[in-house]
Amino acid sequence: MAQKITPRASDYSQWYIDIVVNAKLADYSPVKGCMVIRPRGYAIWERIQQGMDGLFKQTGHVNAYFPLLIPESFMKKEAEHVEGFAPELAVVTHAGGEKLEEPLVIRPTSETIIWSMYKKWIQSYRDLPLLINQWCNVLRWEKRTRLFLRTTEFLWQEGHTAHATSQEAEEETLRMLGVYKTFAEEYLALPVLAGVKTDSEKFAGAVRTYCIEALMQDRKSLQAGTSHYLGQNFAKAFDVTFQTKDKTVDHVWATSWGASTRLIGALIMAHSDDKGLVVPPRVAPVEAVIVPIFKNETREAVTAFARKLRDDLAGSFRVLLDDDDQNTPGWKFSEYEMQGVPVRIEIGPRDMEKGQVVAVRRDTGEKAFVPAAGAGAALRTLLDSIQSSLYGRALKFRTESTFRVRDYAEFKKLIDDPGGFIEAGWCGDAACEARVKEETKATIRLLPLERTDTGGASCMVCGKTARDVAVFGRAY
Amino acid sequence: MAQKITPRASDYSQWYIDIVVNAKLADYSPVKGCMVIRPRGYAIWERIQQGMDGLFKQTGHVNAYFPLLIPESFMKKEAEHVEGFAPELAVVTHAGGEKLEEPLVIRPTSETIIWSMYKKWIQSYRDLPLLINQWCNVLRWEKRTRLFLRTTEFLWQEGHTAHATSQEAEEETLRMLGVYKTFAEEYLALPVLAGVKTDSEKFAGAVRTYCIEALMQDRKSLQAGTSHYLGQNFAKAFDVTFQTKDKTVDHVWATSWGASTRLIGALIMAHSDDKGLVVPPRVAPVEAVIVPIFKNETREAVTAFARKLRDDLAGSFRVLLDDDDQNTPGWKFSEYEMQGVPVRIEIGPRDMEKGQVVAVRRDTGEKAFVPAAGAGAALRTLLDSIQSSLYGRALKFRTESTFRVRDYAEFKKLIDDPGGFIEAGWCGDAACEARVKEETKATIRLLPLERTDTGGASCMVCGKTARDVAVFGRAY
Repeated sequence: MAQKITPRASDYSQWYIDIVVNAKLADYSPVKGCMVIRPRGYAIWERIQQGMDGLFKQTGHVNAYFPLLIPESFMKKEAEHVEGFAPELAVVTHAGGEKLEEPLVIRPTSETIIWSMYKKWIQSYRDLPLLINQWCNVLRWEKRTRLFLRTTEFLWQEGHTAHATSQEAEEETLRMLGVYKTFAEEYLALPVLAGVKTDSEKFAGAVRTYCIEALMQDRKSLQAGTSHYLGQNFAKAFDVTFQTKDKTVDHVWATSWGASTRLIGALIMAHSDDKGLVVPPRVAPVEAVIVPIFKNETREAVTAFARKLRDDLAGSFRVLLDDDDQNTPGWKFSEYEMQGVPVRIEIGPRDMEKGQVVAVRRDTGEKAFVPAAGAGAALRTLLDSIQSSLYGRALKFRTESTFRVRDYAEFKKLIDDPGGFIEAGWCGDAACEARVKEETKATIRLLPLERTDTGGASCMVCGKTARDVAVFGRAY
Repeated sequence: MAQKITPRASDYSQWYIDIVVNAKLADYSPVKGCMVIRPRGYAIWERIQQGMDGLFKQTGHVNAYFPLLIPESFMKKEAEHVEGFAPELAVVTHAGGEKLEEPLVIRPTSETIIWSMYKKWIQSYRDLPLLINQWCNVLRWEKRTRLFLRTTEFLWQEGHTAHATSQEAEEETLRMLGVYKTFAEEYLALPVLAGVKTDSEKFAGAVRTYCIEALMQDRKSLQAGTSHYLGQNFAKAFDVTFQTKDKTVDHVWATSWGASTRLIGALIMAHSDDKGLVVPPRVAPVEAVIVPIFKNETREAVTAFARKLRDDLAGSFRVLLDDDDQNTPGWKFSEYEMQGVPVRIEIGPRDMEKGQVVAVRRDTGEKAFVPAAGAGAALRTLLDSIQSSLYGRALKFRTESTFRVRDYAEFKKLIDDPGGFIEAGWCGDAACEARVKEETKATIRLLPLERTDTGGASCMVCGKTARDVAVFGRAY
């Protein structure tokens, strides 16, 4: 039997872990804070990589690979960068049986090593823009970890681009934020808010950090991707200059942007239910599982029928036939519900006689009889419908969980119950932001990209005129 | 102008480096022994990954991801393993601002961390076989490095499989050796010998190591992939047992197998020439480049013609149009020869009038006039022909560079001039093997998989009856 999953209502955190572990997406490793991504979790990551990499290439980016190890001194060249990352670094002090002259850190992010190379590669405006992405592992020594959402080591992509003008770099920063938003919404069926971080939440070394934020079912926010406008900070730290078109010399303008295996955590938390994992079809490793139902006397015929269907579908779909006779159909139903396969196709002897199959949606449990001859078209429609209905459901949930408040007392009540995104006036002062964080554990998730008219609102904390309507939330 | 490349005849090592650097495949990094894989080199790696990953999946394997860091104590659990890898380890002693209780090593290979997980996942024969592969970076502190061929950090895949019987594990080991051979020959156009290593050359912790070996143009051998039969060594070290079908308990049987970014070095060294890189079409990021040739008055028409051709071909080929007017056609010709694009398509005003294009092969320089309307079919034929002719040329070179000797004096002469694969009788004694290595720097690359009849030969060193005909060579 499939393992039992703690219901969301009784313990949301445990529900999440039960799904990750029982659906065999990931496992705890013997190294503190590091996880093992098991084949079923990794297959989702492969789908994510493929989709995202396609969008990166469509927008003119190429992939490369830079070293894992960074000289410690490099980290120190950008003052804010080192301040932000120093506490999380893992340090290699010995190698090849000897103490190193200079310690090497394992990359927590690669701006420094990459900009040390850009210095070699960029001389003239003709070398720009440089639009490079890297898929790799990074390491940040975290105190409190949670599978996929926050782990010491994680897999991600990090884009690092170099431009001749500030404007181009700003455009790139927003373009990639848009790519993340598109990817989250169209692939992960995850509606996201897009906006800019406040100074206290921005990336260490950035001029401005943009982000997308998604709402989980427990009404906590999850940052699902960030895109940084770095200005000339790293170019100055690594002395990367170029000859401009009009023969002057300027420092290069930069962006960086990243999204990680955390996205797997996001999709689990956003869509899954008490029966197990729910995966949007576009990133599901298996789109449909075929389960033949037979007794001894019908086994051969039903299985042959199921095999033919599998062969018919296999050209256009990621489809699995489970004709193992060690497990009952009922066991298989729960197992594939647990695994989050979007559609289950059941075939019994009577279905076979009628030339039909039963298609069951993972998201709603809805059943439909489908003529076997038209199974491909029906499956396509069904998968599209699941994809858009998961998005619609999540969007409805987010809308219902978004509140606009004027008053700090009301804010405090709502952030506890029910939680969600809370929009409130903010004067722009870091002190007010910090007070909210201290008193409620809520932070400003973002200032919306298209800044809302504050409508003459006041800062909910200090009462001064609001500069922005900020979106607050408790976050992962 | 494209950078000049040192001819092979004058300095083979420098020729290789010139190609890697000038074709922008890789660059030296500020971290000793670590390289940066630049976009053009990484694009080849992406083609290699895609091809190889497809073959792995066809043979039933799935991908996963295990931690980068391994507790130092794990490395010591298998005696031969630690002896082999200890000198090459990089050690993390500090993290998160504190000294670690137990140092962590950066994986040089992942048997130990993976078998510590397999202990959790394997209880019964029903959990077997476990057929897992991982794409990742590994680190081995090397003293002498060379771009792609031997670097401190490199990218690779490592397969780790677990089986219920010794026989199954042996079959898997040979199956994956076969996959490597197929991949090398059919994708990289690299003829390889397949065989087993002697004890002195086997993987630290393996019962038997199989390998494929390719011959480079300087007649040195390059190990291009290894597949290890590990017996129960790691299962015993990590106490991984399972309940067999007949209810007894046994240790699990294992294999591991790996191939790395070294393959990029192999294909460069095997196929390239004094004009630059030559890449087999199947792994070439760009299969054909279109270069329009125009003067001011013909620019518009020729470029439009070239664009249409590009659009026609783009659905079926990886094709690039270079209509930049900052560089001359001549400059572009050398540049794409340097970059190793398999086919160049030239279009001048007169070609356009005749409705034809000129297709030029990178490997032979041969030119052919092709009707523009049939360019797709012609390009397909041309690419197939280049792929097979590169293989044929390399095979002919290997055949001509393989010698059979009876006499150690003759061996010494041949290994110096011209070099190559030298087959000779070997008694099986490690002392004779070691003597050859010391005196000639040649090692036994492998004992052929289908062991040749020794024909009553003697060991060329000691004169005793030969157990095997071994293939000797100097190696990278």
